[in-house]
Amino acid sequence: MLLDDRIKLRIFGSSHSEEIGVVVEGVGFGETIDLDKLQAFVDRRKSKFGFTTPRKESDKIIIESGIENGITTGGEIVAKVLNENFRRADYDKFKVTPRPSHADYAAITKYGKGHDLSGGGRFSGRITVPLCIAGGIALQLLEQKGIKIGAYIQRIGSVEGKSYRFTLPCEDEVMSAGKKDFPVLDDGYVLPMMREIEGAKKTGDSVGGVVECVVFGLPVGTGGELTSSLESAISKNIFSIPAVKGVEFGTGFLLSSMRASAANDEFIYDETGKVVTTTNNNGGINGGICNGMPVTFRVAFKPAPSISIEQRTVDLEAKTNTTVTIKGNHDCCFVPRAVPAVEAMTAIAILNLL
Amino acid sequence: MLLDDRIKLRIFGSSHSEEIGVVVEGVGFGETIDLDKLQAFVDRRKSKFGFTTPRKESDKIIIESGIENGITTGGEIVAKVLNENFRRADYDKFKVTPRPSHADYAAITKYGKGHDLSGGGRFSGRITVPLCIAGGIALQLLEQKGIKIGAYIQRIGSVEGKSYRFTLPCEDEVMSAGKKDFPVLDDGYVLPMMREIEGAKKTGDSVGGVVECVVFGLPVGTGGELTSSLESAISKNIFSIPAVKGVEFGTGFLLSSMRASAANDEFIYDETGKVVTTTNNNGGINGGICNGMPVTFRVAFKPAPSISIEQRTVDLEAKTNTTVTIKGNHDCCFVPRAVPAVEAMTAIAILNLL
Amino acid sequence: MLLDDRIKLRIFGSSHSEEIGVVVEGVGFGETIDLDKLQAFVDRRKSKFGFTTPRKESDKIIIESGIENGITTGGEIVAKVLNENFRRADYDKFKVTPRPSHADYAAITKYGKGHDLSGGGRFSGRITVPLCIAGGIALQLLEQKGIKIGAYIQRIGSVEGKSYRFTLPCEDEVMSAGKKDFPVLDDGYVLPMMREIEGAKKTGDSVGGVVECVVFGLPVGTGGELTSSLESAISKNIFSIPAVKGVEFGTGFLLSSMRASAANDEFIYDETGKVVTTTNNNGGINGGICNGMPVTFRVAFKPAPSISIEQRTVDLEAKTNTTVTIKGNHDCCFVPRAVPAVEAMTAIAILNLL
Amino acid sequence: MLLDDRIKLRIFGSSHSEEIGVVVEGVGFGETIDLDKLQAFVDRRKSKFGFTTPRKESDKIIIESGIENGITTGGEIVAKVLNENFRRADYDKFKVTPRPSHADYAAITKYGKGHDLSGGGRFSGRITVPLCIAGGIALQLLEQKGIKIGAYIQRIGSVEGKSYRFTLPCEDEVMSAGKKDFPVLDDGYVLPMMREIEGAKKTGDSVGGVVECVVFGLPVGTGGELTSSLESAISKNIFSIPAVKGVEFGTGFLLSSMRASAANDEFIYDETGKVVTTTNNNGGINGGICNGMPVTFRVAFKPAPSISIEQRTVDLEAKTNTTVTIKGNHDCCFVPRAVPAVEAMTAIAILNLL
Repeated sequence: MLLDDRIKLRIFGSSHSEEIGVVVEGVGFGETIDLDKLQAFVDRRKSKFGFTTPRKESDKIIIESGIENGITTGGEIVAKVLNENFRRADYDKFKVTPRPSHADYAAITKYGKGHDLSGGGRFSGRITVPLCIAGGIALQLLEQKGIKIGAYIQRIGSVEGKSYRFTLPCEDEVMSAGKKDFPVLDDGYVLPMMREIEGAKKTGDSVGGVVECVVFGLPVGTGGELTSSLESAISKNIFSIPAVKGVEFGTGFLLSSMRASAANDEFIYDETGKVVTTTNNNGGINGGICNGMPVTFRVAFKPAPSISIEQRTVDLEAKTNTTVTIKGNHDCCFVPRAVPAVEAMTAIAILNLL
Repeated sequence: MLLDDRIKLRIFGSSHSEEIGVVVEGVGFGETIDLDKLQAFVDRRKSKFGFTTPRKESDKIIIESGIENGITTGGEIVAKVLNENFRRADYDKFKVTPRPSHADYAAITKYGKGHDLSGGGRFSGRITVPLCIAGGIALQLLEQKGIKIGAYIQRIGSVEGKSYRFTLPCEDEVMSAGKKDFPVLDDGYVLPMMREIEGAKKTGDSVGGVVECVVFGLPVGTGGELTSSLESAISKNIFSIPAVKGVEFGTGFLLSSMRASAANDEFIYDETGKVVTTTNNNGGINGGICNGMPVTFRVAFKPAPSISIEQRTVDLEAKTNTTVTIKGNHDCCFVPRAVPAVEAMTAIAILNLL
Repeated sequence: MLLDDRIKLRIFGSSHSEEIGVVVEGVGFGETIDLDKLQAFVDRRKSKFGFTTPRKESDKIIIESGIENGITTGGEIVAKVLNENFRRADYDKFKVTPRPSHADYAAITKYGKGHDLSGGGRFSGRITVPLCIAGGIALQLLEQKGIKIGAYIQRIGSVEGKSYRFTLPCEDEVMSAGKKDFPVLDDGYVLPMMREIEGAKKTGDSVGGVVECVVFGLPVGTGGELTSSLESAISKNIFSIPAVKGVEFGTGFLLSSMRASAANDEFIYDETGKVVTTTNNNGGINGGICNGMPVTFRVAFKPAPSISIEQRTVDLEAKTNTTVTIKGNHDCCFVPRAVPAVEAMTAIAILNLL
Repeated sequence: MLLDDRIKLRIFGSSHSEEIGVVVEGVGFGETIDLDKLQAFVDRRKSKFGFTTPRKESDKIIIESGIENGITTGGEIVAKVLNENFRRADYDKFKVTPRPSHADYAAITKYGKGHDLSGGGRFSGRITVPLCIAGGIALQLLEQKGIKIGAYIQRIGSVEGKSYRFTLPCEDEVMSAGKKDFPVLDDGYVLPMMREIEGAKKTGDSVGGVVECVVFGLPVGTGGELTSSLESAISKNIFSIPAVKGVEFGTGFLLSSMRASAANDEFIYDETGKVVTTTNNNGGINGGICNGMPVTFRVAFKPAPSISIEQRTVDLEAKTNTTVTIKGNHDCCFVPRAVPAVEAMTAIAILNLL
């Protein structure tokens, strides 16, 4: 399971195995990694609200190799967490009656019935733990080069919060959003977004949303042609995160309804003599290459497919139509927990391009 | 410039060199390639309307090696077209006064002043000629396996035409759209879309749009985890196409505002005993893997950045703010011509996953 | 309760009184009214699906005066239906703990505690019965003048169906939509729209939507200045229908993001020598006056506020925060039933302007 | 030309007559009107930017009767301004070749060729001068009752600025927006919105937008049933303003895609013991009646139809297709100037309901 050229990731374990972790190659020798900071980053994906999964995991990072005394050894970094509250047996019936909009049916067809679906197996949101460990390391390496990445919730269900789709992002505002329990730019949107989440929770339903991400400090020229374009590199990694169904850069889909006379980002010298653009509709990217402006993009997450209401599905053994009901408490909105995963996968993409 | 694992592409030449072409590795030995069909496919990206670039090119494909008598030899396929109407000198001034929302500034900073910007160099829409040659070959290989790919215009500016965002795509309708001069599903939208394009043209402006694409016949299980997910593979390739700023699968960004109780795609057996979903909001992809339904996605193209009105930019030599005016006739809407490029890059992504 | 200048309406009764009806003044003498057709029109607002209110009413129209042998007498038309399945007592508690997004709180504050909230009182969707009776009469009068009005569902929740927002409406398609059990232009959208409704129903929730309406055959010049503009007259009446939160004409809100070079509707002579516009972005209205093209508009309905889940509210006696749960089966999507009400109120508006 | 029940308006003059003014009945006796404040309000609709009409008018209000020493006399208020820079003859050709999306064709058909089209006649944006005079008086009367109305630009073209669609409006922020040269809530949006306007101006085109309006301090219970609903009363007046194509209250069209579990506005007692709702998705209106929350709505303006590019039209004398070019400098975005007109017409609607 190779992710990329320079930084290679390999995931081991799954949602309902004893442990889940990641092997990271390519970080190099002598890099300083602050493990407390890494733990704090991974902890950002924990449940902080009643609406998310009640499965409680300590998610204490165990470094097995590759980092000693906070310095990389040059060998593979192997890091993991223990899965403390898993129940494998629950998932067997989904091999026969696959859950709608889960990977069950596609995975069984691809890998056969021996495939472990427990907790979504490799398709679980729990896979974002190892991704966040690897990405948290990448974020620290980037920060040492003056590159910062911040993400936040921009939309929950129909509720659109503050966005930097049309305006220039404020670094302080972006970088402090991630530290909030409910990471948004403008706290005035917490209540209506919470209403969307609570509305879903009360009705046994789930709701999705949009995460916006900004990369500050990326050198002009980062990126390249064709599939080494910044957009290709970032989108490829972002679509690795479960439940992502769309990625758009800068003003994105709305840019395609604007005329160029308004959409084009004009160049000027700012007061410090730096070349900047007055608007940032292209999200800091021209021709696949960074133009020195903040790189901005938005990521669409679908609603969590596990809901407690009865749904139609097939019985793959009886070859009949039937229904399935998914018991247990479900994460009725995983968007707040997906925010660090977006930062993590972006960091790995950027590190690979530098 | 390697594109991918199995099929490797290398582009040579640029917009304003004598020729532009592609080296394709990995196609294998003994595959039948219909060169007339390939030429017809590449011809779909030609100007058919007054609103597109007046640069006329015959774009006759010259196979230099790798295909003999319509059969692949197993060696690298080298194919090219001649550039007949280029004027290199015109572009020198853009090294000093970079065009807004073009790659000029980022490319010069990255590659230095020796970099050839002519006609956008490697960043030109003309790069879609070799991409269409390579993709046209991939499309033929896929078709031999029962896989068909069709794309069409779904939006021009603000005008939303028919889409399969919410409904199941009709194969005949999709596959015949591409053969139209103005490739849309419902011809009732040709007039209002043309008004958007003519409005832009009359005012010296440009307008973008959205292309929707459907893959029929993809086997259940195609795709994989993390960056080998179908979404990762397709998005990586699609963002290689100049001017793409967003990609969304299935219902995409709108899916993130739906509740799972409506958004989830329920499974049923159809009348032929095949497992299908009643809706296709996930665009045929669950957990990064094809679930057997048509794979659907939409691609956002920004308006062509070359417009004839004066725009603000910097003078990189004088280090002052100035303006730039881009002479010549411009392609005021390249979306119709981008349709085959979307099919081409999708075909290469799919071929790499099989 | 006077509705307008020429045609005056007065509603009597309410949702949970013995009967509910309407007094219509101004229709004039000697007009032919087909009572079977009128009954059939009113029946279009009945529940046809399990998702709507289970309250069954025969809604047999009783003409008390004003129409004899199918001819108007020139006096007031008094028409009513009986309420067969009402339970008044259920509603008393809502005077103390008002239901969120219902009129309870505002009405009690305005009218005092003696106000009858039963079944929403005058605010109930049941008020659309007398509106449909009056509007059904207006529709027949208009049809005799060659004016036809057709409405249909254009969106349910997030699912956008076919619309004539950008294209010229086809009269046959519009006028036949209303006769369908589920009135949409393109039946391909029935399934995804039903999924939105069923998703809401299964979770004890409700969902709103958008109705689109087209008026064919309106003479050039209909309308006037200021509040006698076509838009004023129609919107005033449409906002009389419970739960309407928005009205837009032609391309509406999207028109405001277009440039005039594409948005303006150009005039041409058609093959019959009639002046028409090539597009209809203004919805047949220029300067408040009909330009001879079909008049098009869309109406936004909020989700039905009665849902079975517990909601926060106040106790107006104890002056404390509390919760309220609304028992009984609710209409989880009233949009299909609102379609004839849109036609009815439009007909009355048009009749007043002629 | 009667506008309403209590307050009656009659406009005299037109865009290109010697003067344009308004007769206001129903204001009553002994009301204090601050004429300087009234002048300042009317001045808010003046051109403040190069992008609006270059026609310069002093628009000095002349009170002819009804107000003496700043006190209403109880008689009709007659107020007017002089038209200083009009050229009537220019408009004659539009009787033969009507301008696309102007009222020319509909008005000539309705009123005959004798109708004065000069400057749009009664259909001109200049009609907002008398509307602002009448509305400015209404605003002062409302303010004396503790009711304040503030409007601001929420969108220009595709650029969405800050809105109170989902969050509770801050009175200070709203009421200070109107005093800005470019009235928006968040000044960060001035630049991208200006780019939309300048883009339109540079290309001889025009662009529309959306104005958002908030009414603070309206008593619970204001409004009524059917066409005396708050929504009916406001929308009827707002659609009197030229170029308005849509009105939505609260969360509006987006509300119709939300589920009630999130959309419903729950009641609580605030810290002062007042009943409030936690969200305001219904825009302060339940069942057509104010629930005590701020009343919010948005108004869609189409792009100004007068543009300098050649457009297709008909020759009504020759009965042939032809083209028309509209000379002179045009108002390429009237949205900033429409803001006070929205406040004015809202004030008159509210005053009529009290």
